[in-house]
Amino acid sequence: MSQQQRDALDALLRSAPRSETRPTVEEQRSGFIAALTRPAPKDVITRRTVLGGRPTLELEPAEASSRGRLLYLHGGGYVVGSPDTHAGLVGELARRARLRAMSVDYRLAPEHPFPAAVDDGLAAYRELLAAGTDPRDLVMAGDSAGGGLSIATLLAAREAGLPQPAAVVVFSPWVDLTLAGGSIRSKEDVDPIFTEADVRAYADLYVGADNRAHPLASPVFADLTGLPPLLVQVGANEVLLDDAIRLAGRAGADDVEVTLEVGAGLPHVFQHHYGRLDEADAALDRAAHFLTAHLGVDDLESVH
Amino acid sequence: MSQQQRDALDALLRSAPRSETRPTVEEQRSGFIAALTRPAPKDVITRRTVLGGRPTLELEPAEASSRGRLLYLHGGGYVVGSPDTHAGLVGELARRARLRAMSVDYRLAPEHPFPAAVDDGLAAYRELLAAGTDPRDLVMAGDSAGGGLSIATLLAAREAGLPQPAAVVVFSPWVDLTLAGGSIRSKEDVDPIFTEADVRAYADLYVGADNRAHPLASPVFADLTGLPPLLVQVGANEVLLDDAIRLAGRAGADDVEVTLEVGAGLPHVFQHHYGRLDEADAALDRAAHFLTAHLGVDDLESVH
Repeated sequence: MSQQQRDALDALLRSAPRSETRPTVEEQRSGFIAALTRPAPKDVITRRTVLGGRPTLELEPAEASSRGRLLYLHGGGYVVGSPDTHAGLVGELARRARLRAMSVDYRLAPEHPFPAAVDDGLAAYRELLAAGTDPRDLVMAGDSAGGGLSIATLLAAREAGLPQPAAVVVFSPWVDLTLAGGSIRSKEDVDPIFTEADVRAYADLYVGADNRAHPLASPVFADLTGLPPLLVQVGANEVLLDDAIRLAGRAGADDVEVTLEVGAGLPHVFQHHYGRLDEADAALDRAAHFLTAHLGVDDLESVH
Repeated sequence: MSQQQRDALDALLRSAPRSETRPTVEEQRSGFIAALTRPAPKDVITRRTVLGGRPTLELEPAEASSRGRLLYLHGGGYVVGSPDTHAGLVGELARRARLRAMSVDYRLAPEHPFPAAVDDGLAAYRELLAAGTDPRDLVMAGDSAGGGLSIATLLAAREAGLPQPAAVVVFSPWVDLTLAGGSIRSKEDVDPIFTEADVRAYADLYVGADNRAHPLASPVFADLTGLPPLLVQVGANEVLLDDAIRLAGRAGADDVEVTLEVGAGLPHVFQHHYGRLDEADAALDRAAHFLTAHLGVDDLESVH
């Protein structure tokens, strides 16, 4: 049934109304909420809390293991989205990994441009460590802009002298705000969600031209040495495909253990469509397995 | 223990004597046999046979399933190696996948330059189909030059109008005989096996300058559309790292389902070192799982 599922999803995504003029930021935010939000799974308890000074949604699966923690940074071009729009996605990942997740409501652009989001990601990570979380019990994940922000947060943590977590998973990460990947143009026709102009508009709101290639804005240009094992999942029908490919290449160049999975015929952050797209469920299962397989591994016996 | 295992392997590989002058082809072949050959596992029966007109080693695990078949093309720069040097590696993969394997002794350069190896790969594939093997029960694998040759064989099969197999796995594939990847230089110091000059010498023996970028010699420059799900495994300590990265990128660009795994601190075709390097066993297990997960899937329900 999967070809039918993919076709139906593609048609659904293409059916979204597109205004002639670019919507305002508020219109984008409300449209994102309407299009994307799915509730947390029934067997995942959610609580409002604060982490690193920012509102945070804690998601605790019924069968959560006691030690592990997942720090999650949602997507939305650094402009839209929240832990609430991603409660379903993060809850599904947390449930499958049996991990308590902390999904941070980091500050958004244009009100809070670069590096506010990175500052908030680092503050959340730092507070988890300060509260006594062993970094070997800590994993990280994010999607789209939140995937790039996850990598940026780990780079900021490294620069701050903090230990790295056990693993990191990114779904369709946006890691090049200069839009230098060839797929930005070559995949425009098959991407049912984004055009180059859409992505460029987000970049314009988040980071000034002078900082577009800064390693904490565009981690594809960073030295990734010392980062933990990394799993990158991406669809082949994405203008951001080359962000994922080049991130994996950069990781390998810097001797970081990395797995890249490209799903044929799939759109941006297809994992949102769990329960109605077989590849989404399978990808979330693999992501959960990747995170837990690296948890609690002693440094000396680690695979990295 | 894995860091110790990796360090020991690196030291072992670097301890191989290197002559001041380039060895003759015969010296290279005998040296390769001495350095690499491991016997097939005890629970894998081997038989000499012929496939597509070439001598072929059949490897049948004790617990082989009746239907699936694995076509394997060994590595060795298109110049050295044979099914015998690779009996251990192929036997381990076959045993873990519970698949009967056919490992083809395709013609080598310089006696038989490009495209002799591709012709032999295609002839073997064609004969398996002609014998009634359902392509959905057929998978393919290869390492190094045999990885590039596996992709070239699938491209040749596509051009010949033959159906594609269910999946393909390549270990450290050599897919760019123009040596255009940045890692050809940037990884020279950390690669314990190859220098740029070593790789260039193999290319010089296999294919003339005019055909160096031919898609069947350097499949990284091919249109890969229509190829089956692909798993690429590579070490980060390889001059051929960028061959693997770019092959995965090319596959994604052409909407081919692809998984790329880069192992930190690992050398070229580290899978040879099963039983003494944990990452080798884990990688072979994942490769076997990838192959069998795609076997026998009906086209209409396929993930690709």
